[in-house]
Amino acid sequence: MLNKEFKEKLILVAGKQNVEDSNASRLVYSYDATPGFQSLPDAVVSPRSANEVSEIVKLCSEYKVPIVPRGSGTNLAGGTCPTQGGIVLLFKHMNKILEIDEENLTVTVQPGAVTLDLINQVEAKGLFYPPDPSSMKISTIGGNINENSGGLRGLKYGVTRDYVMALEIVLANGDIIRTGGKLAKDVAGYDFTRLFTGSEGTLGILTEATLKLIPMPETKSTMLALYQDLEAAARSVSKIIAGKIIPATLEFLDQPTLKVVEDFAKIGLPTDVKAVLLIEQDGPADLVSKDMLKMAEICKQEDAVSVQLAKTAEEAEALRTARRSALSALARLKPTTILEDATVPRSEIAKMVTAINEIGETYNVQICTFGHAGDGNLHPTVATDARNHEEMERVEQAFAAIFEKAIELGGTITGEHGVGEMKAPYLEWKLGTAGIHAMKAIKDALDPNGIMNPGKIFAKDTRKRVVVTS
Amino acid sequence: MLNKEFKEKLILVAGKQNVEDSNASRLVYSYDATPGFQSLPDAVVSPRSANEVSEIVKLCSEYKVPIVPRGSGTNLAGGTCPTQGGIVLLFKHMNKILEIDEENLTVTVQPGAVTLDLINQVEAKGLFYPPDPSSMKISTIGGNINENSGGLRGLKYGVTRDYVMALEIVLANGDIIRTGGKLAKDVAGYDFTRLFTGSEGTLGILTEATLKLIPMPETKSTMLALYQDLEAAARSVSKIIAGKIIPATLEFLDQPTLKVVEDFAKIGLPTDVKAVLLIEQDGPADLVSKDMLKMAEICKQEDAVSVQLAKTAEEAEALRTARRSALSALARLKPTTILEDATVPRSEIAKMVTAINEIGETYNVQICTFGHAGDGNLHPTVATDARNHEEMERVEQAFAAIFEKAIELGGTITGEHGVGEMKAPYLEWKLGTAGIHAMKAIKDALDPNGIMNPGKIFAKDTRKRVVVTS
Repeated sequence: MLNKEFKEKLILVAGKQNVEDSNASRLVYSYDATPGFQSLPDAVVSPRSANEVSEIVKLCSEYKVPIVPRGSGTNLAGGTCPTQGGIVLLFKHMNKILEIDEENLTVTVQPGAVTLDLINQVEAKGLFYPPDPSSMKISTIGGNINENSGGLRGLKYGVTRDYVMALEIVLANGDIIRTGGKLAKDVAGYDFTRLFTGSEGTLGILTEATLKLIPMPETKSTMLALYQDLEAAARSVSKIIAGKIIPATLEFLDQPTLKVVEDFAKIGLPTDVKAVLLIEQDGPADLVSKDMLKMAEICKQEDAVSVQLAKTAEEAEALRTARRSALSALARLKPTTILEDATVPRSEIAKMVTAINEIGETYNVQICTFGHAGDGNLHPTVATDARNHEEMERVEQAFAAIFEKAIELGGTITGEHGVGEMKAPYLEWKLGTAGIHAMKAIKDALDPNGIMNPGKIFAKDTRKRVVVTS
Repeated sequence: MLNKEFKEKLILVAGKQNVEDSNASRLVYSYDATPGFQSLPDAVVSPRSANEVSEIVKLCSEYKVPIVPRGSGTNLAGGTCPTQGGIVLLFKHMNKILEIDEENLTVTVQPGAVTLDLINQVEAKGLFYPPDPSSMKISTIGGNINENSGGLRGLKYGVTRDYVMALEIVLANGDIIRTGGKLAKDVAGYDFTRLFTGSEGTLGILTEATLKLIPMPETKSTMLALYQDLEAAARSVSKIIAGKIIPATLEFLDQPTLKVVEDFAKIGLPTDVKAVLLIEQDGPADLVSKDMLKMAEICKQEDAVSVQLAKTAEEAEALRTARRSALSALARLKPTTILEDATVPRSEIAKMVTAINEIGETYNVQICTFGHAGDGNLHPTVATDARNHEEMERVEQAFAAIFEKAIELGGTITGEHGVGEMKAPYLEWKLGTAGIHAMKAIKDALDPNGIMNPGKIFAKDTRKRVVVTS
């Protein structure tokens, strides 16, 4: 419950209509897309400007009230769940695309702008914003920046971080700072633009961002390579990269995922093969056909049973959409869907895929695996039921084993979803005690009262390490 | 002078031969490439491993001795000058290229490796490391990372930061941490890889780095566009980018620079024109010729008096080398050469070039301007004599006016050289009091004793702002 005095002051700042604390509105923002996390906020506040955010943050600091910034709540690691109560900050009023600068190739946006709207608007001007998280139809740019979101085009074009040029941020003391600029080069001080990108709202509240755009590639081509052998598919991925081709997209789907996706999307995906690679290249037409030919050859050499080029743009779009719908499709199977994003160096993809299958057998858990194979970023997913405690325990053990294996292979516990609260107990496995300690020093320096999305990234306890099963 | 006990302990850690405190060796490391900065260190220490660095840092922490890490001392902002004494850390033993990983397209190096050696070694394998600071023949990768160095290829390929994937760092408490990995995607915790990149040795000591490589572009083409009008050259730059062409290199040299460079390099550069653009594109042959044609057309439309394609690879290399030698050439003119790197959004290049000339006239200072026009990163340079105090005062005022103008145009006080000690008094102009305050909180959190390259980035006093002259 909100302190009465605090609530009155909040209303003075944000307006009565922008401070909601009815049970209904609190319930709506009590969870995000992560299973197993739910907690009521004390209020939901929708500021209209950076100055209002600053005033709200000062109030929260004074009254020691947690603040959880939230876009569309597509987070998969509990990052936007208000697990310690406090206020959820919504950006429904701060959702504008402020400027597309065609001379400097930048776009300036408010945090609540929807990713796909931005992509469509810049593409209408012949420009390209590559980061394309699967949730882009509803995800917001603020959420993408806070999580450093990836997507299907990450292999060639990088992730959100690679496109953030400047930020306006409200710090825990209410200070409004601006980092970077419309500048290709800027070394004036510490790289706050990138420190805040991916910091999951634990260091400050993002209120504006300037993003880099690039010229739209001329053409794009799409193909599917089908395999009866998982490892052959994984080997194709390594061989393509080692062959010095960087495709725009290089996605992997295993048979269980294929079946579920086809059942959902009904676009004629093959379900009788063990794995599929979805491969795309973009750029000038000649170059694209040359690369596609070379990649098709590599796939065939690595025992692809068939390599099929998409014949039309519609067919290609259907394939991409099907891939993006994997989570939605899997979510229909059972009440609880747990999707992870362990990531390994590209060279280790085959080993990781094999290990995931072995781990699934060991813990008697059916794991569907798909993901951005070219990045080494896999999404092993389990459809389960949170009410079945015995099975949930096995699922958790299986994921712990997957994280351990990823780290053993030189990888990480999260490639693009973030740590949030769900993966916080595993973070020390990747960073070590000293790494966590240094991060905590920075967190405490910028947020001494611990009001900025508390409980995220930093865990109360690190999970005990398991013995890897393979 | 070193405390005797401290020195004995240092020798125990690093070996007698690696702890030098003779007057001669202290003198050698008392300055870097920045005019006006000189100060004797108490000793020069050359560690052989990260563990030795950790032990040295612990000792320095115990005895409150400053540590200044140093590559080849090509810093232009006083960043590697031991202005508060202490020890200069050399990496002559930690200079190896440890691994080139052709499957993951990475190279792992020690900080003392020379940039050009790395570039040559990876190019021999058909791979490409784009960051190419003009000092690359002698600069080290450790220095490049600490300064987030740019170069001629920054426009298309980005700067050092865009290629750092993983770091090993020794923190001020002696902890050794590892950030990142051979991973295209990694969001496990704060982005320490980028926070430390460009932090100028003020947060920790870099002991190893893994850098991203890309496939070597197939071909490269080079041309010179000559102008009798500075602004026409600047307009051509904006129009090329707005035309959605991103050339590999887009360098600008004004007439005073051209004359000096030609006098130095004697390769037949035109000295009877007001400005030259050096333009390069790389990639597949067809694409390169298409882009070069389009750019030549734009230059002609914008009143280039001549556009000349380099006929041979040797001619192209001579042009690039001449451009890279600009600082050396200018340094021959007078005892003191002050080179700055104010940076503006690309669209503001014409305004900035005009302003620099006006500022030169106002303060009666001859400014030669060259630089990475495509990035908006200019290097206005003054050849002067530090012993002429009256002139030096005017030079300083002129540079203050240049910084002020750059910031007014949405730019920054340094694009690629770093803040160091020289530009620290101007940093608040760019970041504001709140920005400096937040940076200082991080510095204090990670380096509570203030031993890591003290006096750099953070100034005792901010310089008073001047009134811009145009």
